[in-house]
Amino acid sequence: MHDDRTGQTAVIFMSNRNGTDPAGYAAAAAAMEALAATQPGYRGIDSVRNETGLGITISYWADDAAAIAWRDDPDHAAIRERGRALWYDRYRVTVARVERDYDWARP
Amino acid sequence: MHDDRTGQTAVIFMSNRNGTDPAGYAAAAAAMEALAATQPGYRGIDSVRNETGLGITISYWADDAAAIAWRDDPDHAAIRERGRALWYDRYRVTVARVERDYDWARP
Repeated sequence: MHDDRTGQTAVIFMSNRNGTDPAGYAAAAAAMEALAATQPGYRGIDSVRNETGLGITISYWADDAAAIAWRDDPDHAAIRERGRALWYDRYRVTVARVERDYDWARP
Repeated sequence: MHDDRTGQTAVIFMSNRNGTDPAGYAAAAAAMEALAATQPGYRGIDSVRNETGLGITISYWADDAAAIAWRDDPDHAAIRERGRALWYDRYRVTVARVERDYDWARP
């Protein structure tokens, strides 16, 4: 088992990319992942996107206050504006508190 | 805004497929999505898998009791066993209660 996420705050970001500006998007996504990892209370990130442009990224935070601080980070807010202007057709943000967490790996 | 998920239980299933038995996997995945949708308290499902086999599927439930009932459904449990025997190299299940939910779409 990796670190147990029970009690953490999960920020689920589901988005549809439209294919605009792929290089700009890739640079911004990498910069945001790196910046998030430096924030207080950051606990990890999982991200998948398929060939149609649909993606789910989940960032994990020590508590809701840390998730809100990241939402309100000025660099993060600026990139979010760019995402609405350019990269995304739609997105959804669902914030949830982890109640239990377990995993399995092939022995 | 689609239905607001605040108060629902999110079951985050992150998995690595190993490429074994793709036809059997696809049939089982479709059957499980269809069966889940008939369960009491089912509220929706989002799913993405990329070309490396990493996937995130999130099912939403009216409350924790509905999520647990689905976990314990015998057909679901049987498929889970098949997944461990054949299709997955690892997976993680993270259950969380939704605190807030919002979305954006290009105007």
